[in-house]
Amino acid sequence: MTKPEIGIGLVGSGFMGRCHANAFRAVSGLFDVPVEPRLAVLADASDELAARAAQALGFARSTGSWQDLVADDAVDIVAITAPNVLHAPIAHAAIDAGKTVYCEKPLATTAAIALEMTEAAEAAGIVTLVGFNFLRNPMIRLARGIIASGEIGEVTGFRGRHAENYMADPDVPHSFRTDPRGGGALADIGSHIISMARFLLGPMAEVQADCRTIHSTRPTALGARECAPVEVDDMTHALVRFECGVSGSLEANWAATARTMDLSWEITGTKGALAFSQERMNELLLWSGGPERCGYTRLEAGPAHPPYGAFCPAPGHQLGFNDLKVIEVAELLEAHAGGAACEPDFREAFEVQRTVEAMQQSHATEQWVSL
Amino acid sequence: MTKPEIGIGLVGSGFMGRCHANAFRAVSGLFDVPVEPRLAVLADASDELAARAAQALGFARSTGSWQDLVADDAVDIVAITAPNVLHAPIAHAAIDAGKTVYCEKPLATTAAIALEMTEAAEAAGIVTLVGFNFLRNPMIRLARGIIASGEIGEVTGFRGRHAENYMADPDVPHSFRTDPRGGGALADIGSHIISMARFLLGPMAEVQADCRTIHSTRPTALGARECAPVEVDDMTHALVRFECGVSGSLEANWAATARTMDLSWEITGTKGALAFSQERMNELLLWSGGPERCGYTRLEAGPAHPPYGAFCPAPGHQLGFNDLKVIEVAELLEAHAGGAACEPDFREAFEVQRTVEAMQQSHATEQWVSL
Amino acid sequence: MTKPEIGIGLVGSGFMGRCHANAFRAVSGLFDVPVEPRLAVLADASDELAARAAQALGFARSTGSWQDLVADDAVDIVAITAPNVLHAPIAHAAIDAGKTVYCEKPLATTAAIALEMTEAAEAAGIVTLVGFNFLRNPMIRLARGIIASGEIGEVTGFRGRHAENYMADPDVPHSFRTDPRGGGALADIGSHIISMARFLLGPMAEVQADCRTIHSTRPTALGARECAPVEVDDMTHALVRFECGVSGSLEANWAATARTMDLSWEITGTKGALAFSQERMNELLLWSGGPERCGYTRLEAGPAHPPYGAFCPAPGHQLGFNDLKVIEVAELLEAHAGGAACEPDFREAFEVQRTVEAMQQSHATEQWVSL
Amino acid sequence: MTKPEIGIGLVGSGFMGRCHANAFRAVSGLFDVPVEPRLAVLADASDELAARAAQALGFARSTGSWQDLVADDAVDIVAITAPNVLHAPIAHAAIDAGKTVYCEKPLATTAAIALEMTEAAEAAGIVTLVGFNFLRNPMIRLARGIIASGEIGEVTGFRGRHAENYMADPDVPHSFRTDPRGGGALADIGSHIISMARFLLGPMAEVQADCRTIHSTRPTALGARECAPVEVDDMTHALVRFECGVSGSLEANWAATARTMDLSWEITGTKGALAFSQERMNELLLWSGGPERCGYTRLEAGPAHPPYGAFCPAPGHQLGFNDLKVIEVAELLEAHAGGAACEPDFREAFEVQRTVEAMQQSHATEQWVSL
Repeated sequence: MTKPEIGIGLVGSGFMGRCHANAFRAVSGLFDVPVEPRLAVLADASDELAARAAQALGFARSTGSWQDLVADDAVDIVAITAPNVLHAPIAHAAIDAGKTVYCEKPLATTAAIALEMTEAAEAAGIVTLVGFNFLRNPMIRLARGIIASGEIGEVTGFRGRHAENYMADPDVPHSFRTDPRGGGALADIGSHIISMARFLLGPMAEVQADCRTIHSTRPTALGARECAPVEVDDMTHALVRFECGVSGSLEANWAATARTMDLSWEITGTKGALAFSQERMNELLLWSGGPERCGYTRLEAGPAHPPYGAFCPAPGHQLGFNDLKVIEVAELLEAHAGGAACEPDFREAFEVQRTVEAMQQSHATEQWVSL
Repeated sequence: MTKPEIGIGLVGSGFMGRCHANAFRAVSGLFDVPVEPRLAVLADASDELAARAAQALGFARSTGSWQDLVADDAVDIVAITAPNVLHAPIAHAAIDAGKTVYCEKPLATTAAIALEMTEAAEAAGIVTLVGFNFLRNPMIRLARGIIASGEIGEVTGFRGRHAENYMADPDVPHSFRTDPRGGGALADIGSHIISMARFLLGPMAEVQADCRTIHSTRPTALGARECAPVEVDDMTHALVRFECGVSGSLEANWAATARTMDLSWEITGTKGALAFSQERMNELLLWSGGPERCGYTRLEAGPAHPPYGAFCPAPGHQLGFNDLKVIEVAELLEAHAGGAACEPDFREAFEVQRTVEAMQQSHATEQWVSL
Repeated sequence: MTKPEIGIGLVGSGFMGRCHANAFRAVSGLFDVPVEPRLAVLADASDELAARAAQALGFARSTGSWQDLVADDAVDIVAITAPNVLHAPIAHAAIDAGKTVYCEKPLATTAAIALEMTEAAEAAGIVTLVGFNFLRNPMIRLARGIIASGEIGEVTGFRGRHAENYMADPDVPHSFRTDPRGGGALADIGSHIISMARFLLGPMAEVQADCRTIHSTRPTALGARECAPVEVDDMTHALVRFECGVSGSLEANWAATARTMDLSWEITGTKGALAFSQERMNELLLWSGGPERCGYTRLEAGPAHPPYGAFCPAPGHQLGFNDLKVIEVAELLEAHAGGAACEPDFREAFEVQRTVEAMQQSHATEQWVSL
Repeated sequence: MTKPEIGIGLVGSGFMGRCHANAFRAVSGLFDVPVEPRLAVLADASDELAARAAQALGFARSTGSWQDLVADDAVDIVAITAPNVLHAPIAHAAIDAGKTVYCEKPLATTAAIALEMTEAAEAAGIVTLVGFNFLRNPMIRLARGIIASGEIGEVTGFRGRHAENYMADPDVPHSFRTDPRGGGALADIGSHIISMARFLLGPMAEVQADCRTIHSTRPTALGARECAPVEVDDMTHALVRFECGVSGSLEANWAATARTMDLSWEITGTKGALAFSQERMNELLLWSGGPERCGYTRLEAGPAHPPYGAFCPAPGHQLGFNDLKVIEVAELLEAHAGGAACEPDFREAFEVQRTVEAMQQSHATEQWVSL
C-alpha cells in the first residue's frame, strides 16, 4: 500500500533551505513516516534564483513569489527559511491558508510578533514546528529521560553556553545577523541554549544578563572600507533562575575564537550529573558514582537511544548534523498526519524569544527581570 | 538543463542496502553530480522481501532475482549488498552486462576469487567501486594530504586497529560473519584498518600475525541451545612492514568489549605525527610543535576540508556515518559519467583481501609472509 | 659553602599544615634556595596534639601556644594554617615580632580584617605570602605569559569556575566552612578562581552575583540527628567586568556532584584562546589556528615551562598538587632572603576577599556592585 | 617515641639520583614508615662531583668511591642510580656487605648478569627493590584489583605501549642509551610496559617482535660532526602471548614524535575493560556497562585509592611523578624493617629483562620465542 503524498513548499534556499530540502528527500528512506513528502514548490527572492535552486534541490516547480507558493494547492506544508523579517508575513499567510508551518528560528524579529503568530496558529488549529534542531539529538532526549527519571536526584545547578566563532573576526560585515531587529549573538545562538535549557529543566523565572558588543563597528559589506556601528551583542553572559528552583548561568557568544559549536551544558543533581557538548554530539557524560567508582561515564550514541536506530543498527557509527534535521522532519510529518503534537511549536519559540528579550531588558536596566 | 538520469539496481536491503539506497536518494541534493540517480530496481532473496524493501526505500520496481535486476535495461549501476558469497556471481554478471559495479566489502570470500573479479572488470573496462566508506571522511583525506606534503617529515611508525564489540558476547550466534569462507574479525573489520593504512602509507611488504579465537563455540542460531565450534578469529594482532619502509602494528578485534567503533591509528613522522579514531570521526589530531608549544592539535572538520562543505557551510556541525556513504556515491557517479577513476576499485579491494590472507597464512605457519 | 638556616614555625597540622611541612622539607632538594629551612616549632590546639604532629612531620619542638611559637627566637617564618578566625591575631603578632608571614587563604574572615592585616604588614615592611597555590602551576604561568605577549590578541571574554563536590551531600555537617564569618562556597573556593582570574586578567571593576544555598540545613556535627540552618552559599554564579574591559562569568560551587577539582577557565582573545582545568593540571589548551588548522592544541607541561624542570628534566612526567606547594615555598624563601617580592601578598589576598564580599553584596541588593 | 634511623647511601646524582634523594627526604612526612631514613653518604664519579651533589641534596657525607660508600657502616640501604654497567658490581658488593639494595632499572646490561645478581641476593637473604616506579600509581593498583576481582570477567586481550619522543631527533647523540649492552628503546622503556603487563596479567609465554632502528647513525657526542652507526632499536612492535592465555601486542618507541609519556594500555575482558595512559596518570578508564549505559567511566584518583590519601585527603588534587617514587621508597622501608616483601625485586627485574631479550632474539630469528 502506498502512502499518501503531501506537498512541501520551501521558502528560501540558503544553508537552512538546503538542509530542509535534503531532510524531506531523505526522511521516508529512514523513518516509516505516515506520508510521503513530495518536493512541490520552491520560492526564492527571484524567479531565476528559485528556478536554479529548485533544480539543484529537486523541487518540481519554482517561483519568485512566496505568496504564490503559499497559495499553491500542491503545497501542504510551508517550510520557511527566508530572512527573519519575512517569517511573520509568510507564516500568517500560511496559517490563513490552513497549512502546516515549519519555520526556522528565530520565529520572528520580536517576541510580540512571535506571540501574534502563535495566537493566530493556535486559533486556526494549525500544526507548527520551529527548527531548534539540536533538541532532536538522541543524546539530548536521553538526558531529558535521565533527569525525568530521577537518576541524578533533584537538579541543583545549571551551566550552559552556545559559543561559536563565526563573528569573531571584526572584518565580518554587517548582515541580517547584526540587524537590531532580532540580531545579535543572544538571539542568534543564545536561543539554542535557552531552548535546550527549557527542554531539559523547564521555564526560567528570572534572568539578569550582561550583553557585550566586542567589535563596535563592522564593514557595511564584505570587503567594504566603510564601517557602521554595531548595536547588537557579540557575547552575553547571564544569570538564570528556573521556575523549578534551579539556578545557574548561561552564555551566548559568537566571537568565541576557539569554538565552532560549543553548545554545551552541565546539569548537577543531588545524586549525579550530566554534561554535553554539541562538539561531540554523539556522546553524553553521566556521573552516577560513589567515591571508589566516581567519574563521568562517556555514553556513546547507539540504537539504545531512539531514534538513532533509524539511521544505523550499530552503535558508535555516529549521527551528523544533517541527521538531526531528518529527525525533525519525521516528527513534523507525524504531527501533520494527526499524530502527537510536535515540539517546539510556535508557542515554545515565542517563550524562547521572550526569554531573550528579558535578558536584553535586564542588561538595559541592570536589574533582574521576571518572566 | 536537466541532468541525464541513470538507473540504480540494488541487490540486498539490510544495513548496507538501506545505506546505499539512502545515499543515492540524497546525493544530488548535496553534490553537483553529473547524473541524476533513479532508484530503478531492488532485488532481494524473495519477491516478497524485495517488494517490501522497494517500497520502504523508494525503488520503482522489485524482484526476487538478482539475475533479472542485472539484466534489466533500466539498471546502469549494480550495487551489491548481498551476502558475501554472492558478490562474485552478481559482479561477474554485471560486468558481462557492461554495467558499473558498486560492491560492499569484502569483495569476495577469497583473494583468488577477488582477483578473478578484478581481472574480469579490468578486461571489460568496467568502473568498479568497493565500499570502504571510512576512507571518504574529509579528515582522512586531510591526513593523506598532510602526509603527502611532508608536513610531518618522513613517516617512521604506524600503529592501527579496528576494534568493536559486536561479537564480544559468546551468545552471539554463528552467521555469515563466522563462516570460514571470508569470515572472522580480521576479514570483517581488519580489512578497514588495512585499507586505511594502504590509503595513507601504501602497500605492505611483509606481515606476521597472531589470530585468536576467544569464544571457541557459539550457538548455531540466535537463542539456540546447540553450539558449534568457531573456526575464525575474534581478535588478530599483527606486525606489519610497509613497502615504503615504515613498520608497525595492526589489530582487528570484534570482541573488544569497551569499543563500538575504534577504527584508529597513530602515524609518526620525523617532524610530526597524526592520530585519528573513528569514534570521533570529525577530529584529526596533528602534532607539529617544538618543546614549548608541543602537543596534539585537535583539528575539527569544517568547510576547509572537502567535501565537508557539501553538507554544511559552517565548521563544527559534524558529519555522520551515513554522510560518508553519500560522498562515496557522489564519487561513483562522477566515475560512472567518465570522470576521475574512483578508488578503491576491485583491484584495491583484492589487495586488501590478499593482505588479510597473508596475515592468516603467517599465523598458520608462524612465519613472516611476504606480499 | 653551606647556606644560612632559617627557622620555620608552623601553626596548625591539618591538610594544609602537613602540606606546608612537607614542602619545607622538600624544597632545598629541588630548588637552589638561598636559605635552608629548618622545621623549628609546630603549634597546635594543645600541647599533646602539637607534640604528636611535630614528631610525625619532623619538627624539632612543639607547643600548644601559637603565642609562644611566634615569640620563639628560633622561628623566622610563621606559617599559618590554623582555623580562619585565628589568621588575624596570629598574623598581627608575627608582624609585630618582625617575622615573615606565610598564611593560608582566606587571609581573614572579612575583607575589613584582611585590610588591617595588610596595612600592618606593609607599615612594618614584612614579607607576606598567601597560599593561593594553584597560581604556582607552570601552565598557569605559561598562560599569563601567552596573554601578556599578545599571542591571542586582545582579550575579549572570560568564563571561569571552581567546582568541587565535597559539600554536595546534605549529610556533610556544619563546620568552619559553613560559618557565616568567612564561609561558603564563594569564599572557600570561589576565591581560587577569583585569584586566578586576577592573576591572568587583572582586577575586576564590577560584579553581579547570585548566591544559592542548596541544602538549607545541615547536621550540627558528623552523624548528628540535629540539624541547623545554613546561611552560606553552596553555589554562586556571577557576572564579572574586569578593569581591562573584558567581561564574562564566574562560578563557585562546592555541591557540583560530578566534580572534584574543576578549577577551570577559558579566555578568548581576538587572535586565539586559552583553556585550562585543574583536573588536568599538566595541560594547557591553546588555540591559535586559521580555518584549516584550527582547533585547540594540548600543551603538555615540561622543562620548557619553568619551574617544571626543578622537579623533572623530562616532559610528560607530570607535577602533582603537592609540588605546587613546594614552588610556593621556594618563592617565599627567595622573598624572605631579600629577593623579588612574592605574590600573592596580603594586599592581593585582601583584594580577592573584597571581590568576594562585593559579590555577596550584589546578591543581597540585586544590583551590580563596583569595586 | 622516636623511630630508629637508617642510613641511605646513594650512588649517582643524575635525574634518578635526585629523585631518590628527594623521595627519602619526603617519605616520613607523608607515610608512617617504621624507620626514619637519614641521607648518610652520596657517591659519584669523583670526589668533587659527589661533594657538590651531597650538598645540593642534603647528604651528610660524600665520596668519589662507591666501594667506600658500600663499606660505610653508616649505610644500611644502597640506592643505585649509577650507569647501567655499574649496577652489577655495586649490587654484588652491597649484597656481600649484607645491605638492602634499591636499584634503578634496568637491573643489569644482560639478563644473564641480572640472574647472577638475583641469585646472589636470594642466597644472601637480601631485601631488593628495582625502580619500576610506574607500578606505584594508585590507579595501576586499582586496575590490578579490578582485574583480580573478576569485575571485567575473564581477560581476553591486551594492547600496550610505552612511547616517548626523547630520541626522535636524529641529532640526539650516542650515549649509554644506545650502548648495545642493554640499550635501545625496548630495554629502556619497553621494560616499563613489560613490567606493567606482568604486574597486571602475569608472565608472558611466547613473544615475537620486530625491532627497528629508525636513525641508522647518530653523532658521537652532542653537537659532534662525526657520526657512528646505531645498533639498537628505536622502535619495537611485538606480539605477545601470556601464560594465562591472553594474547595481544606491545610497543616500545623512543622516537614517537608526538608522545612524551604514553605508557598506556587497554585490557579487555568478557564483562568489561580497562584503559590507562601515564599521560593522565590520575585517571583510569573502566567500562562495565550494558547497551544503554555503555562507555568508559573516567575514574579519578582520590583517597579511595591507596595510598593516594597519604598525599592528600581530597580527591582530584592529583599526584605527580615524584610522588610515585615516594611510594616506592615507603614500601622499601617497610620491607627493610621486616615487613612485607616488596616488589618488583631483583627476580622480577630479571624476568622483565629476560622478556626483553626474548623479543630481541625473536627479531633476529624471525621466529616466536618461548620464555
